[in-house]
Amino acid sequence: MSAISRFPVPELKDLPGDVRERIVAVQEKSGFVPNVFLALAHRPAEFRAFFAYHDALMDKEGGLTKAEREMIVVATSGANNCHYCVVAHGAILRIRAKNPLVADQVAINHRKADITARQRAMLDFAMKVALESHKVEEADFAALAKDGFSKDEVWDIAAIAAFFAMSNRLANVSSMRPNDEFYLMGRVPK
Amino acid sequence: MSAISRFPVPELKDLPGDVRERIVAVQEKSGFVPNVFLALAHRPAEFRAFFAYHDALMDKEGGLTKAEREMIVVATSGANNCHYCVVAHGAILRIRAKNPLVADQVAINHRKADITARQRAMLDFAMKVALESHKVEEADFAALAKDGFSKDEVWDIAAIAAFFAMSNRLANVSSMRPNDEFYLMGRVPK
Amino acid sequence: MSAISRFPVPELKDLPGDVRERIVAVQEKSGFVPNVFLALAHRPAEFRAFFAYHDALMDKEGGLTKAEREMIVVATSGANNCHYCVVAHGAILRIRAKNPLVADQVAINHRKADITARQRAMLDFAMKVALESHKVEEADFAALAKDGFSKDEVWDIAAIAAFFAMSNRLANVSSMRPNDEFYLMGRVPK
Amino acid sequence: MSAISRFPVPELKDLPGDVRERIVAVQEKSGFVPNVFLALAHRPAEFRAFFAYHDALMDKEGGLTKAEREMIVVATSGANNCHYCVVAHGAILRIRAKNPLVADQVAINHRKADITARQRAMLDFAMKVALESHKVEEADFAALAKDGFSKDEVWDIAAIAAFFAMSNRLANVSSMRPNDEFYLMGRVPK
Amino acid sequence: MSAISRFPVPELKDLPGDVRERIVAVQEKSGFVPNVFLALAHRPAEFRAFFAYHDALMDKEGGLTKAEREMIVVATSGANNCHYCVVAHGAILRIRAKNPLVADQVAINHRKADITARQRAMLDFAMKVALESHKVEEADFAALAKDGFSKDEVWDIAAIAAFFAMSNRLANVSSMRPNDEFYLMGRVPK
Amino acid sequence: MSAISRFPVPELKDLPGDVRERIVAVQEKSGFVPNVFLALAHRPAEFRAFFAYHDALMDKEGGLTKAEREMIVVATSGANNCHYCVVAHGAILRIRAKNPLVADQVAINHRKADITARQRAMLDFAMKVALESHKVEEADFAALAKDGFSKDEVWDIAAIAAFFAMSNRLANVSSMRPNDEFYLMGRVPK
Repeated sequence: MSAISRFPVPELKDLPGDVRERIVAVQEKSGFVPNVFLALAHRPAEFRAFFAYHDALMDKEGGLTKAEREMIVVATSGANNCHYCVVAHGAILRIRAKNPLVADQVAINHRKADITARQRAMLDFAMKVALESHKVEEADFAALAKDGFSKDEVWDIAAIAAFFAMSNRLANVSSMRPNDEFYLMGRVPK
Repeated sequence: MSAISRFPVPELKDLPGDVRERIVAVQEKSGFVPNVFLALAHRPAEFRAFFAYHDALMDKEGGLTKAEREMIVVATSGANNCHYCVVAHGAILRIRAKNPLVADQVAINHRKADITARQRAMLDFAMKVALESHKVEEADFAALAKDGFSKDEVWDIAAIAAFFAMSNRLANVSSMRPNDEFYLMGRVPK
Repeated sequence: MSAISRFPVPELKDLPGDVRERIVAVQEKSGFVPNVFLALAHRPAEFRAFFAYHDALMDKEGGLTKAEREMIVVATSGANNCHYCVVAHGAILRIRAKNPLVADQVAINHRKADITARQRAMLDFAMKVALESHKVEEADFAALAKDGFSKDEVWDIAAIAAFFAMSNRLANVSSMRPNDEFYLMGRVPK
Repeated sequence: MSAISRFPVPELKDLPGDVRERIVAVQEKSGFVPNVFLALAHRPAEFRAFFAYHDALMDKEGGLTKAEREMIVVATSGANNCHYCVVAHGAILRIRAKNPLVADQVAINHRKADITARQRAMLDFAMKVALESHKVEEADFAALAKDGFSKDEVWDIAAIAAFFAMSNRLANVSSMRPNDEFYLMGRVPK
Repeated sequence: MSAISRFPVPELKDLPGDVRERIVAVQEKSGFVPNVFLALAHRPAEFRAFFAYHDALMDKEGGLTKAEREMIVVATSGANNCHYCVVAHGAILRIRAKNPLVADQVAINHRKADITARQRAMLDFAMKVALESHKVEEADFAALAKDGFSKDEVWDIAAIAAFFAMSNRLANVSSMRPNDEFYLMGRVPK
Repeated sequence: MSAISRFPVPELKDLPGDVRERIVAVQEKSGFVPNVFLALAHRPAEFRAFFAYHDALMDKEGGLTKAEREMIVVATSGANNCHYCVVAHGAILRIRAKNPLVADQVAINHRKADITARQRAMLDFAMKVALESHKVEEADFAALAKDGFSKDEVWDIAAIAAFFAMSNRLANVSSMRPNDEFYLMGRVPK
């Protein structure tokens, strides 16, 4: 079970240029290639759409902080038992929040995490979207507005939870393996 | 509750050119604009990624038939209680399968639908991906291989179920309303 | 799987007179015999009790409208994944409500249906009876009273949800097949 | 909470003759009136249908023994947390099985009860009908046939589980209170 | 399935002195040896810790009454489908509460039991601890304080529910059989 | 939420001698006092029983390795969303298994962990004990015997899963906070 994926993992040289360039770029930035790039590369059209979607939601400026966006990923991925996403996005969360503890806390039980009341409300809603979105009601929107979330921020919470509902399922089915590097990232003060 | 969405729906004239063109094109082809195009248009980058991903999975040639791809959408959207997707993709399924009954059958209980044994196996797996993807195991892959599914087809089943896990959540949260036209499409012989 | 039932379906001529008469009467009224009559006929005593019970709850004058009674059936049958009841009673609901959309809406997610606030409260309670009746409490009765439901109407909601808890299970176990006619009934304006 | 029901309980003298006669008859036979008769009497048409149905399923000769029929009631009523049915039918089961222990065993966990392998298979199926009837499949029928159950017996198991799915919900909603007499019946050797 | 346990049951003479003495003492007090003593005896160190823990929680003076402590056991053991604990502690509850009905009521659905509002609040909290302890929040503590529970009493409720979460699992896995004597204890006025 | 517990945490000097000694001993061995010792100390009798039980199960020689015992704790604590136990026992697992990755893997989804087939079977059974112990059957025992587990080892698996069913609930209710030290322990090669 130590392969990256149950599905084919192409060699870099066999990939379309734009896919390869994206992978090379992330390698240069991170020092390694997160396996999700390799595990999705056998489907270039899906690869492009996946990362375009991901970037639109996760690298957006304004509104939720980048750490908060990662909190949503880690909390909902924990609820979906997604090994890849909890480990990889847990690492990113630790780095973005500059907090070595919060990722494990949020992944196990966000109710016990060292987060603000506003972040708690954000994660409560994200978990409802992840686990029983058909029960979302006007009352949820009213509560989020009272907590100071703009309509745009509410969409972001929901869209991130929804995107990782997809991502978790892809990772679970393919048995996508997180890189060993992720486990330790952001845990040790530099 | 008769609005298209809980979130802003921009006017066509205010949209980026490529988004507007895509909407105009679907209108010309279908005779109306499915509301999902309008409900996602307030976020052009997400709109582009969403439909690029959708088309890569649903309009693909070879492997699963287009009707089978829609079966996966309808069955999993039923399990997720997604009003928009069951109604809209139910219509598309009726048309693609040239079968006025199968969409309602698959949405309510795919075990009772007039489908082949192979399609039953396909939907069993799609439902597992939709509802408990963390329990997918080697045994599932072995069973699908025995039923004659190629690795590529298995990915397609999983990826469609995963994509609509996202889509269902977006539609549920935004209370996306299916166009009235969908309810009757494909039910009456022409 | 295109048979009417997994259990014996007797010929009309072999049935007790009163059972046959009931079936002939419904055929004359509807133009066809709904399969539930044929699927239950092999047990005449149960057939008689079933339809006596059904009529006492569904054809009652006063209180809930007949369309509202059918809404309860369709919503709870959707929750129980009952293919026969969603399709057959969906048709009756469309006709009684003179609304071609409401049945599909209620079957998939009653929270998104074009119904009144009072009907929403009615269906919320019906779903609680269908899915977790042991948690019904005084507070539920107080809320229903505040929404203007009489004690008799509350009993009707509960009794209809309870009767179809039985009916759904009989249909699911026997794999009772709805007549093809039901799928289109009430969808096309005459 | 010591009333018989949350709904009206009419006086005997105000009831239609046949309903009153049935109640008087059971009182003479049992020495007391089980509260279900009083709790349903405010709806004479439903009362008649309920007991006609009940008797058709529970007092039938041949096939399943009367004790086995009660086992199905007690096991599924336990799963539905139905106070009235577990206590009242538990008493009847003890008497019909001439076994002071089996009712409590079956109500809590039928897997641990002192019953035959055939009865275990019967209860496994009854519980599936009670809790997830939409998953009943041909394989269940094949297994029951192998265990020696006739088609008629399979219908009986399913129909009893279905009837008490209704009955449990009525009792839970009305907070129907079992007579104190039931708790001790069949526990002490005469 | 009439053995006491799926695991070894040592003979009294082969047990360490303190374990044997404890067993002899309970036999003298109760007139028989509850099977839990025999089923755990094959592991003397665990036996000692189990009963030390049990006694610290169940035989404590002050705060919750001994009957209330047993109510917590019976309600949560019912939710965990623990045959041994419902039957054995049901007997003890009947005796301690001097009430022949309350144990069956609490085991099936504590919402319908003849208990005080305070006991109802106690059992609601105990059930939350038993079934979804990760959702316990400050709001639960505030509500219990308002109902007059001291911090020490809240701990007792939680600790008893937690201890029997363990005990139920041991009994379920070992298929621990309650002594026949328990079924009738406390049901008949002396 | 940065306190150790919602319940009183006594000062060392106010504790009974044996309790204080145990705490001092663990501090000397570990370099810090794991918060569970402080959070349980307000109840000395329970403290003594808890740790006696814990040591009997976790420090036992022979049979399951100590790392395997910790795997059971981490997997079932993940399923119970227990923040304290996943973090603290995750640290111990990393150290005992000399593996910096396995704890996160087992906590999120043991099906994807780098463990042996035998350990996988062990954890499957432990999860069944943790989540639905009433469904444990002879077939589970037969399967474990085939995988080479002795009866004593099966008891250990079940007893550890049961003990932490208790422990998880105590930690969840008290909002027990894991020491910051645990998060990093065993992750960095010395």
